[in-house]
Amino acid sequence: MRAEIISVGTELLLGHIVNTNAAYLSKKLALLGIDLYYQTTIGDNPARLVSALKQAFSRSDIVFTTGGLGPTVDDITLSSICSATFKEFTFNKKIEKCIARHFRKRGLKKMPRDAARQAYIPRGACWFENNVGTAPGTLIEHGEKIIFALPGPPRELIPIFEKNVIPYLKKKGLTGKWIIKTKTIKIVGLVEAEVNKIVKDLLSAGPATTLGIYVHLGEVDLKITSKAKDGKAVEREIKKLEKEIRKRLGKYIYGVDSESLEYVVGKMLAGKRPKGVPSTAIKNIGREGKKTLAIAESCTGGLIANRITNVSGSSKYFKMGIVAYSNEAKVNLLGVSKGKIKKYGAVSKQVALDMAKGVKRLSKADVGLGITGIAGPKGATGKKPIGLVYIAVAGDKIKTVKKCLFIGSREEIKLQASTAALDLLRKIGTVPEGDCPYFSNS
Amino acid sequence: MRAEIISVGTELLLGHIVNTNAAYLSKKLALLGIDLYYQTTIGDNPARLVSALKQAFSRSDIVFTTGGLGPTVDDITLSSICSATFKEFTFNKKIEKCIARHFRKRGLKKMPRDAARQAYIPRGACWFENNVGTAPGTLIEHGEKIIFALPGPPRELIPIFEKNVIPYLKKKGLTGKWIIKTKTIKIVGLVEAEVNKIVKDLLSAGPATTLGIYVHLGEVDLKITSKAKDGKAVEREIKKLEKEIRKRLGKYIYGVDSESLEYVVGKMLAGKRPKGVPSTAIKNIGREGKKTLAIAESCTGGLIANRITNVSGSSKYFKMGIVAYSNEAKVNLLGVSKGKIKKYGAVSKQVALDMAKGVKRLSKADVGLGITGIAGPKGATGKKPIGLVYIAVAGDKIKTVKKCLFIGSREEIKLQASTAALDLLRKIGTVPEGDCPYFSNS
Repeated sequence: MRAEIISVGTELLLGHIVNTNAAYLSKKLALLGIDLYYQTTIGDNPARLVSALKQAFSRSDIVFTTGGLGPTVDDITLSSICSATFKEFTFNKKIEKCIARHFRKRGLKKMPRDAARQAYIPRGACWFENNVGTAPGTLIEHGEKIIFALPGPPRELIPIFEKNVIPYLKKKGLTGKWIIKTKTIKIVGLVEAEVNKIVKDLLSAGPATTLGIYVHLGEVDLKITSKAKDGKAVEREIKKLEKEIRKRLGKYIYGVDSESLEYVVGKMLAGKRPKGVPSTAIKNIGREGKKTLAIAESCTGGLIANRITNVSGSSKYFKMGIVAYSNEAKVNLLGVSKGKIKKYGAVSKQVALDMAKGVKRLSKADVGLGITGIAGPKGATGKKPIGLVYIAVAGDKIKTVKKCLFIGSREEIKLQASTAALDLLRKIGTVPEGDCPYFSNS
Repeated sequence: MRAEIISVGTELLLGHIVNTNAAYLSKKLALLGIDLYYQTTIGDNPARLVSALKQAFSRSDIVFTTGGLGPTVDDITLSSICSATFKEFTFNKKIEKCIARHFRKRGLKKMPRDAARQAYIPRGACWFENNVGTAPGTLIEHGEKIIFALPGPPRELIPIFEKNVIPYLKKKGLTGKWIIKTKTIKIVGLVEAEVNKIVKDLLSAGPATTLGIYVHLGEVDLKITSKAKDGKAVEREIKKLEKEIRKRLGKYIYGVDSESLEYVVGKMLAGKRPKGVPSTAIKNIGREGKKTLAIAESCTGGLIANRITNVSGSSKYFKMGIVAYSNEAKVNLLGVSKGKIKKYGAVSKQVALDMAKGVKRLSKADVGLGITGIAGPKGATGKKPIGLVYIAVAGDKIKTVKKCLFIGSREEIKLQASTAALDLLRKIGTVPEGDCPYFSNS
């Protein structure tokens, strides 16, 4: 089964809204084992829509349209489907009743006059009630081809798709015989080109199992997608590939799927042994029990604390965060030595370490993190460029300082610096001092 | 001039990512007066891409492709453009040098071998340096048609579009005769339904000038779009509508266009008089000079400090942030009274105010902000639901505490709370004590 999506709406072509429907339907179709080769967006123009529909019939089995079902003259999807399939546009009394009920439920006694326009559908079409809005979903058969016309607002489209479209496709045996699963392996501390070099031969692993590389700022995802005729075979294939990836990229892998770096670090502090933390780091942080963290931030301005506290339950291990933007705060609150600031500058290895030690002492936490740098766009000096960041971790028996250089806007530098800092925590005590390999991915 | 966009990437057809590039380019093209009739998404499949390119040449003057410019074998955009335009795929030494420099700048001495793949372009093509990533933007002429091949990551695509593509289109006289401008009026402290009620009659202002409502979490945007044949007429129309909106929604408007709430608050602290700050608030903060801010956060966990420090130059007015997650930190560092925590609880008006005063005292800042609440999903007690947040502002002569209730996930509650806190700073000393009208938009 081959499907394609035609999104209808001038507002999409003007960029007023982002087409999240296409992404939603695409994801669902992949999981249903239905191949999708095209997404097309057309404005509220009948001639262009009719021609796009005809092209779709020539190359796909199922066509999904989204949008253009409203009550105004701009809403042309169903009339265009009629033109493309040579069907009559007919009034449906039952739909009109549904629409009237919809308005009554919302306290409007009289149905707005234009609303009845939404009771017209192609002759012979099936329709699905819309419990959120007024435009029903419509299913039109055209020879061997099937067209689903779905409303544009995601909160109307999604329920109709889940409640009506998926069961229909399954009942008619139109879904793939295949079971498709995905697993995302999350990597930090290595750029895309490096990851690519290491896994290149796996990228074309086979027709049933594929590996994709996706890049985020400061992170790389490897996504395994596998399909097979039974669930166990899929799991087995994914496991096999994951094992090989872990063998090659082990220490750079911090988690899978929806796990965030802050979640993994939190688990480690909470005394668990997440897979994404090196075993020596677990030993260093202490296996025996729960540890607490305190953070002193300069250039990241609270972002690391914010990420740590995005994890529910973080109050158990996060003791304190200090955003010490000024030298005054660094000296008075964190006990950073004035002399060091004068000698080495506020952005230096020595100050980062003093910050980590200072916040550890102040909060009586087990681990202190200190970070200082230049987020830009101003603040660079002769020897210290924008993006230069020092990150220090101090435990009872451990101290590490890393020097990093990031590229990007102020917010991008902050984000990358926070990721590198969380990664240094993840690998606590296992990383030798020195320059950090982190830099912007592209 | 007719344009169309072809987005390339199997990840789009699998729904792994949402196509924000198409929305971005569409919006920009509308502003340039270039008509856009089609957006198409194709997977990493050369045959289908070549056929989509040929179709695009048959109906459009300018074709934009996005994505598929990476260093891997999956990246097929430029080789497909070569096939569709009968051009040779050639190695460009200058591009290779740029890529090598990109890696050097990031501290990698050796360029990964595959990276050089990105130095291939169609023979005779122009290219635009990518200052963020490694894939250059490319401009290919094919008879009367023009193709721009742009990289997929938005942070690479946008700078190339702004710096290279727009000037090129303007220079070649390819932009439209209509001048279209937009202005966004940014509103905080009022939900969509309320805003809608107040401006409903303006929504259908006329064919040349339109007003749209766009909702973000905790904020509402009113977007004015106007087109005319000369720039002055457009400005006049926008100004007229803006004036009417300001008359009706005055105190809820904090800024326009790209101004963020933290930017406006920063400007106010820096001694400026931004339009989005009530004049009494300016008087309260003191017109005469620059003021400093310190923040004590509990439930927002550093998010407010992070937002404040996202503004370049914030080091001038932001003295210190304390993330006092634990009662211990609240008492020892901020001097919150133990008795009050016991009597009223850590999430209370009294503790919020003590936090604001405490951080003001500790940092010697002019203004202290304190915030405490329950971000969830755990932590609710009988009388204190998830989403309950107290926000306090303390100046030399001012103190205000607001009680708010937000709905949403942990991160959504944190975001709304940070917005309400920044808004309270914006209106410093002009808001009566009591319950806060902020709540989740829907």
